[in-house]
Amino acid sequence: MARTPVWKTIASALDAEIAAGHYRPGDRLPTEAALSARFDVNRHTVRRALADLVERGMVHTRRGSGAFVTARSTDYPLSRRPRFHRSITDAGRAPSRRVLSLESRAADAREAEALQIPTGAPVHIYEALSFIDDVPTAISRSVFPAGRLPGLLDRLAEQPSITHALAGEGVSDYTRASTRITAKLATATQALLLAIREGDPILRSIAINVAPDGTPVEYGHAWFAGDRLTLTLHGDDA
Amino acid sequence: MARTPVWKTIASALDAEIAAGHYRPGDRLPTEAALSARFDVNRHTVRRALADLVERGMVHTRRGSGAFVTARSTDYPLSRRPRFHRSITDAGRAPSRRVLSLESRAADAREAEALQIPTGAPVHIYEALSFIDDVPTAISRSVFPAGRLPGLLDRLAEQPSITHALAGEGVSDYTRASTRITAKLATATQALLLAIREGDPILRSIAINVAPDGTPVEYGHAWFAGDRLTLTLHGDDA
Repeated sequence: MARTPVWKTIASALDAEIAAGHYRPGDRLPTEAALSARFDVNRHTVRRALADLVERGMVHTRRGSGAFVTARSTDYPLSRRPRFHRSITDAGRAPSRRVLSLESRAADAREAEALQIPTGAPVHIYEALSFIDDVPTAISRSVFPAGRLPGLLDRLAEQPSITHALAGEGVSDYTRASTRITAKLATATQALLLAIREGDPILRSIAINVAPDGTPVEYGHAWFAGDRLTLTLHGDDA
Repeated sequence: MARTPVWKTIASALDAEIAAGHYRPGDRLPTEAALSARFDVNRHTVRRALADLVERGMVHTRRGSGAFVTARSTDYPLSRRPRFHRSITDAGRAPSRRVLSLESRAADAREAEALQIPTGAPVHIYEALSFIDDVPTAISRSVFPAGRLPGLLDRLAEQPSITHALAGEGVSDYTRASTRITAKLATATQALLLAIREGDPILRSIAINVAPDGTPVEYGHAWFAGDRLTLTLHGDDA
């Protein structure tokens, strides 16, 4: 009968310790030397075990820094109606949000074009940090046309829900008109807010959301920690 | 009358040189010291000009390495029918493809689950590098059920078009059943193929495509250079 290879036994042991919370997302695993000593094997065997954990998405390595436990990624559906809070709740996770800033100012050219308003027209800007299970996962900056939604900022100050605030301003439904997605590296500020490292992968989306009559009501940027969130699209959405 | 600020003049000069192809995507701009000397201004003014180019997406900076000309990003619509070649042609760009490998082997557990076949059943694997205007932009690995599509590998060897090869095997249409998108950092191998740097941003998509009767025909991974491609989703697609 075939014996279980030693590297598999080591991978399973580490796997169980991660699952038990002994090592948590973002934690660095012990060095190869330390693991060699602990399991009384050579470093080649340790590397094989770590490679298996990497392959299964449980661990990732950084050149020169070692192996880190990967955070569990949450699925966020790119559905017709962008509703972060509800989507995360539906996924069985706990969403929360911290307001970073609320301000009104004049629209720059890009914002004006997205919202179909004149450059310099007043806009409300709402910046927030979104958490999933208390892990910071997304930074968002939403720009709203203040002329159409005069009371929005006050509503967001009271309760940081875009869906709720828009409903209060008479926009009871809104849908995704266009979304643009690419990959970026975290800036120092983004890294600080998301508790990741500068240069970590960021999934960036830029969206224009519209009221049922097609009028743009939100021009939004979101920066997601790449290790913590996966955008999903299903056939019946596309 | 207000004079144009000096930094704006410098930004415009650099902008025109980039547009004229004097500096090409990926090129490093001269150092701040060199630009200060050339325009006979202090480094603060040069920094303001570079910041303006960064803000407009023409240039990006790397800590300690200077300012680089950003490649033009191509839009790739996340439409119901994934057709890379046609989408890029429609965008007025020139797509091309280099086959990296073609092989048949047994499906691993994840591939089998995605394709709804038994683990160990034969699959065809097709790896390719896709170019837009001769710039390497995407690495793809497609896994096909060999039992359903026995002649696919020979067809791909003849002509590297998935749409064409599937049609030859009787699958005249196929659509996106699910797509999962996240951000990663380029590995050394990916960086080499895409002519980027290890650690540059990568947009990764994992898709399952199905025939009209819902049968999975392709399980595909794609890794896009983040600076070169933007996935787009429009309201009428979503």
